[in-house]
Amino acid sequence: MSKVEEVIRAVLERVRPNALERELVGKVVSDVLARIKAVAERLGVKVEARVEGSIAKDTWISGDRDIDVFIRLPREVGREGLESIGLQIAREAAGDKWIECYAEHPYIEAEVNGFKVDLVPCFAVRSSEEAESAVDRTPFHTDYINLHLSEDLRDEVRLLKQFMKGIEVYGAEVKVQGFSGYLCELLVMRYNSFIDVLKAAAYDWKPYSMVIDIEGHYSSNFEPLILFKAPLVVVDPVDRRRNVAAALSLQKMCEFMAASRAFLENPDLKFFFPPQLTPLSFDEVLNEFNKRGTDFLFILTGCPKAHPDVLWGQFYKSADGIKRLLEIYGFRIIDYAVWSDELHYLVFLFELECADLPPLKKHLGPPVYARDHSIRFVEKYLKDASPIAGPKIEGDRWIVYVNRKYRRAKDLISEKLLEARLGKLVYSELSRGFKVMLNDGVYEFYNASRGFANFLSKYLFGKPRWLL
Amino acid sequence: MSKVEEVIRAVLERVRPNALERELVGKVVSDVLARIKAVAERLGVKVEARVEGSIAKDTWISGDRDIDVFIRLPREVGREGLESIGLQIAREAAGDKWIECYAEHPYIEAEVNGFKVDLVPCFAVRSSEEAESAVDRTPFHTDYINLHLSEDLRDEVRLLKQFMKGIEVYGAEVKVQGFSGYLCELLVMRYNSFIDVLKAAAYDWKPYSMVIDIEGHYSSNFEPLILFKAPLVVVDPVDRRRNVAAALSLQKMCEFMAASRAFLENPDLKFFFPPQLTPLSFDEVLNEFNKRGTDFLFILTGCPKAHPDVLWGQFYKSADGIKRLLEIYGFRIIDYAVWSDELHYLVFLFELECADLPPLKKHLGPPVYARDHSIRFVEKYLKDASPIAGPKIEGDRWIVYVNRKYRRAKDLISEKLLEARLGKLVYSELSRGFKVMLNDGVYEFYNASRGFANFLSKYLFGKPRWLL
Repeated sequence: MSKVEEVIRAVLERVRPNALERELVGKVVSDVLARIKAVAERLGVKVEARVEGSIAKDTWISGDRDIDVFIRLPREVGREGLESIGLQIAREAAGDKWIECYAEHPYIEAEVNGFKVDLVPCFAVRSSEEAESAVDRTPFHTDYINLHLSEDLRDEVRLLKQFMKGIEVYGAEVKVQGFSGYLCELLVMRYNSFIDVLKAAAYDWKPYSMVIDIEGHYSSNFEPLILFKAPLVVVDPVDRRRNVAAALSLQKMCEFMAASRAFLENPDLKFFFPPQLTPLSFDEVLNEFNKRGTDFLFILTGCPKAHPDVLWGQFYKSADGIKRLLEIYGFRIIDYAVWSDELHYLVFLFELECADLPPLKKHLGPPVYARDHSIRFVEKYLKDASPIAGPKIEGDRWIVYVNRKYRRAKDLISEKLLEARLGKLVYSELSRGFKVMLNDGVYEFYNASRGFANFLSKYLFGKPRWLL
Repeated sequence: MSKVEEVIRAVLERVRPNALERELVGKVVSDVLARIKAVAERLGVKVEARVEGSIAKDTWISGDRDIDVFIRLPREVGREGLESIGLQIAREAAGDKWIECYAEHPYIEAEVNGFKVDLVPCFAVRSSEEAESAVDRTPFHTDYINLHLSEDLRDEVRLLKQFMKGIEVYGAEVKVQGFSGYLCELLVMRYNSFIDVLKAAAYDWKPYSMVIDIEGHYSSNFEPLILFKAPLVVVDPVDRRRNVAAALSLQKMCEFMAASRAFLENPDLKFFFPPQLTPLSFDEVLNEFNKRGTDFLFILTGCPKAHPDVLWGQFYKSADGIKRLLEIYGFRIIDYAVWSDELHYLVFLFELECADLPPLKKHLGPPVYARDHSIRFVEKYLKDASPIAGPKIEGDRWIVYVNRKYRRAKDLISEKLLEARLGKLVYSELSRGFKVMLNDGVYEFYNASRGFANFLSKYLFGKPRWLL
């Protein structure tokens, strides 16, 4: 048996659900479906309740605790009916422990026998093209996979999903921007086995030039490439206007390509089940800071209340905005990252070449031939303002050397943070208060939050775990 | 009398040569011409000797000590004849004190009665178009000006030249890259008075779109603009293929434009005769360094022996090359400059945002889909090299954080200076030895060289003197 076969066999042992697990899941599913049916009948509403997602498609991984149950209501109830009657049915069928959530749609997240069951109201549309949102389309994905993905490929999907989990590219949520379960299924359909998906990614794929169009909706790659402008284009078999890989970032696609190649050349269980990183001691953190000689700036604030997709969208947008603010004021950024427990805390990390800049700053003025601007510029710096040097002419422009307003990144952030381009919820949190910490100033928080310690340790480690 | 008229009258008092001075100059000229005639006759060579330049055109400024005498030989003597017979005549006519110089051509620089007389052999060509080099063309410029510039405009030229000297844009030599005397004469011809030249520069000129074509050699501005691609185009009346302003830099053109405007709005003698800057004490220099908070790096070496135009061409080229070297290694340059006494010393000055960089440096690797390069890159940094962090993927590229080879600009220059793109003569000097000084390390040399002290004081002052 080859090394690859050996690894695959060992992985399958762990990811294929056994009979007992299937029975437990089946029990939860039939209970919930029955409860929905009863509630709907009592309320006199005609609904179709069905399991969706990986459970319905038999591509779930042993140990998964997530079950999706969709409650399909007639289109006629309208959006209001969906949110009133749909949610009412979901609530009453959810049992004792549930919360109401809101992503694109409202839905109920319940806990049933240790499983997390999402009860999602949606419209029973006749075809995927009529779908008003992603959830209306889901049942068509389920049907398509069940009809076209042969039985013996379900384990191949499990292998691919576990591989992607191991190398941290699994999940289409905003935080990850990786591969969805449906995308994994289509890749296995397209390439016929787990290994062949990896081979294609490792040896053939190139970002922004890959099209997978299983149903042949387009006659050439040209049209979908132009239409979707994405690193990877996978035309949805049930809706030609949709790219199944729309949420996939260039970063995650490339990480998958590189890890696929690394695995094929050195097959190892670690790709599927990477070793846990133990967080560094704070002394080790300081040691890493010293080795780099850069400056670490942390901005700590509270975490807003919202669905994770909303949160991470705002976190990333805000991080970009703060980066821009720092750069506008002359600070140079090596790299940056966001951490949040999605509950209490939110931390922006900026690694700066240097958190202090010299007082002198070159300020560009107008070109000499912009005559009125030039006069005003020169007069301003000769009379009112007192520059360090200048004004003088450089090439065809006036320039002046002025005193930098913010020499320290920490001062800039303390005073100007709210002027950065921020997500709304993040803006609210920050306006209620935040803490700026530089280098060893993060000591207290590092010791208080294990999640943050893990995050910072991983940042400092700075390479994918499968490269270990 | 308006303020402008008052200033102009005062300037003319000082720049218009008086009768005694004219007599002295005339005496030197006729002596030298007579000596040339005598030597040529003795040698049996038929030559035409004539005065050129501002003396011949009566546009010289009182106190000027430079007289140009050209010795025109028949074309038939060839380049060799020019350099043997031509120089021999020049040498023998030069008197007791002379040296041989070489710019584009060899010539003799003599001292006669306290005047510097350049004796320049050239070919007696029939028209400017037949000129083999700039010196063959000079007599045609002299004739053109004497024929076309009316008598009463000669003082206007003197005013313009003195103005340009005062604001430091006069001289077409490589060091200055400013306006030549001939260019001043043509500007006065074009605009009819000193003040009107200034008005045009102040209110009309725009770099890269100005054409002055007195003889109408071209039917539109379009052709000369495309042909010469220069900030200012002044078509040579005696040779349509030549831009008289070819040596003028954008910088000097713009300084003239800005100073013209400033003078017209606040006429003052200081534009013509700026106050001398007294060099700073070294304590004041340190004070300026501190105010800026930047780092000053000085490279001191010997000055090669060559004509100033050759020297400054190489100095500027070498400064650009060293700047590039510093930038490649991550140092950021605020500004830079060169100083030389053209005899013993040469100093490159670089003002750096910071002369120390952090150890960590981001090193870009290949894109993930450049598969063989990627493998080699990753293996190199996993095995042989020991990076600070990584390799990891950023977007579609591998990157790694490595230890910076040169953290200190001083170390980089000490070890790598000769690898910069340098002028040949500068390379030779530097390979014989140089000294790198940082900030107060320049103390000793500052006190030893008054010329350098003036230069650094002016750099730190950082604005044109006419702005005072």
